[in-house]
Amino acid sequence: VNLLLLLEEDFLPDGIVRLTGRRAAHARIVLRIKEGERLRVGKLNGPVGEGRVLRVSSDELRLQVSLTDQAPKRPGVDLLLAMPRPKALKRVLSGAASLGVDRIVLLNAARVEKSYFDSKVIDEGFMRNLLIEGLEQARDTQLPTVFIRNRLKPFVEDELDGFLGPEPSRVLAHPITAARAVPSIAPRRRTAVAIGPEGGWTPFEIDLLTARGFEVASFGVRSLRVEVFVPFVLGWLQAEHQAQTDPPA
Amino acid sequence: VNLLLLLEEDFLPDGIVRLTGRRAAHARIVLRIKEGERLRVGKLNGPVGEGRVLRVSSDELRLQVSLTDQAPKRPGVDLLLAMPRPKALKRVLSGAASLGVDRIVLLNAARVEKSYFDSKVIDEGFMRNLLIEGLEQARDTQLPTVFIRNRLKPFVEDELDGFLGPEPSRVLAHPITAARAVPSIAPRRRTAVAIGPEGGWTPFEIDLLTARGFEVASFGVRSLRVEVFVPFVLGWLQAEHQAQTDPPA
Repeated sequence: VNLLLLLEEDFLPDGIVRLTGRRAAHARIVLRIKEGERLRVGKLNGPVGEGRVLRVSSDELRLQVSLTDQAPKRPGVDLLLAMPRPKALKRVLSGAASLGVDRIVLLNAARVEKSYFDSKVIDEGFMRNLLIEGLEQARDTQLPTVFIRNRLKPFVEDELDGFLGPEPSRVLAHPITAARAVPSIAPRRRTAVAIGPEGGWTPFEIDLLTARGFEVASFGVRSLRVEVFVPFVLGWLQAEHQAQTDPPA
Repeated sequence: VNLLLLLEEDFLPDGIVRLTGRRAAHARIVLRIKEGERLRVGKLNGPVGEGRVLRVSSDELRLQVSLTDQAPKRPGVDLLLAMPRPKALKRVLSGAASLGVDRIVLLNAARVEKSYFDSKVIDEGFMRNLLIEGLEQARDTQLPTVFIRNRLKPFVEDELDGFLGPEPSRVLAHPITAARAVPSIAPRRRTAVAIGPEGGWTPFEIDLLTARGFEVASFGVRSLRVEVFVPFVLGWLQAEHQAQTDPPA
């Protein structure tokens, strides 16, 4: 853990932070935190800073915190993901949180196995823990929001435009043989990336999304696992963004 | 599996491919391959193409293959990785293979736990299976080569230059607060990326690598897990490469 994430309810009225239960035990046993030590902390959906350990006991940890810095800048990316198999979803959630993704919509699609929607991974508390793990890894505090939509067509036709708003570039990632470039993404704009299931989107689904402004784009001909592809795309967008905001001299 | 990888020894003298054992069983039971069907195949370290199923039985699979296409283009990247924890290494190996990494050097470093070098993951056969899994995912055939060096200093001082040759850009990935750009990588050149352990490289290690031409570069301030960071960097380099070889009109 590179940052200890604090919740609203961890703050006592005098501003002292008091952790109990699992997190206090983790700090004491795994992180081996001792009185007087300092550690990096952040407030969920808020600023980051430092905490000085006032007291460690078997049942609580008390910190004096000073939250003076902003959480890291975010790439401005939303993901529309065909629901991955549960094992992959776990990695995608913590990975996406560490990469600073804002919103994740888990979608049904023709080639998604229906049983994936019954997985315990999509339990709200379970997902939240995975997301927090990703945030603590990357020293971020902004919890991505996860939406589950098990009917693709109504989501795309009735909800998508309001959901994304007019601003973002809309990109549908599709491995194609002819190496076609990713449509260039204007600097400082938001990007929504739609990523299909293992077997790809069907032609019907591609039509559905392109009718709503998604541009089919190839990020190379390699077919990658979703847990590999998500960071690959984020790296790609980040490099594009940097090239555009900081052009070579 | 998006491609069935064939080995030299699978080819009979008449060019027919004969699979037995685990792979034949996998094709029959998991892929449910039937006589007359066609499937994508590739020859290890060679071309790709199609195989027509001549015979499926409980103990063998026979294919008539036609290997007419080249394996996907490779990004020209070597990775120097501080030995990851075994669970992460498994994901890194299959991920890196799917991304078309050429060579992976697993290095010792001050902040690497020594027990990682005793893990069963670094058994040659075990690693090979993970790499093949990644290749079959991405329809590639070129097996990355993995080197294990448990003494960093002699490797960097005595072996590295000969190993990399004069050509590649040498980049040391380091999350730093001041957002410094990645040094621009000339098109069509090879890149070697050094990625530190969970706790980062020590100053001594950074000096060791920069003395051999590695440029410290930030791919953003986020501290990412190595299995997330490897695809993130590959995506970043791929976008840079595309921008340079295919500049906007």
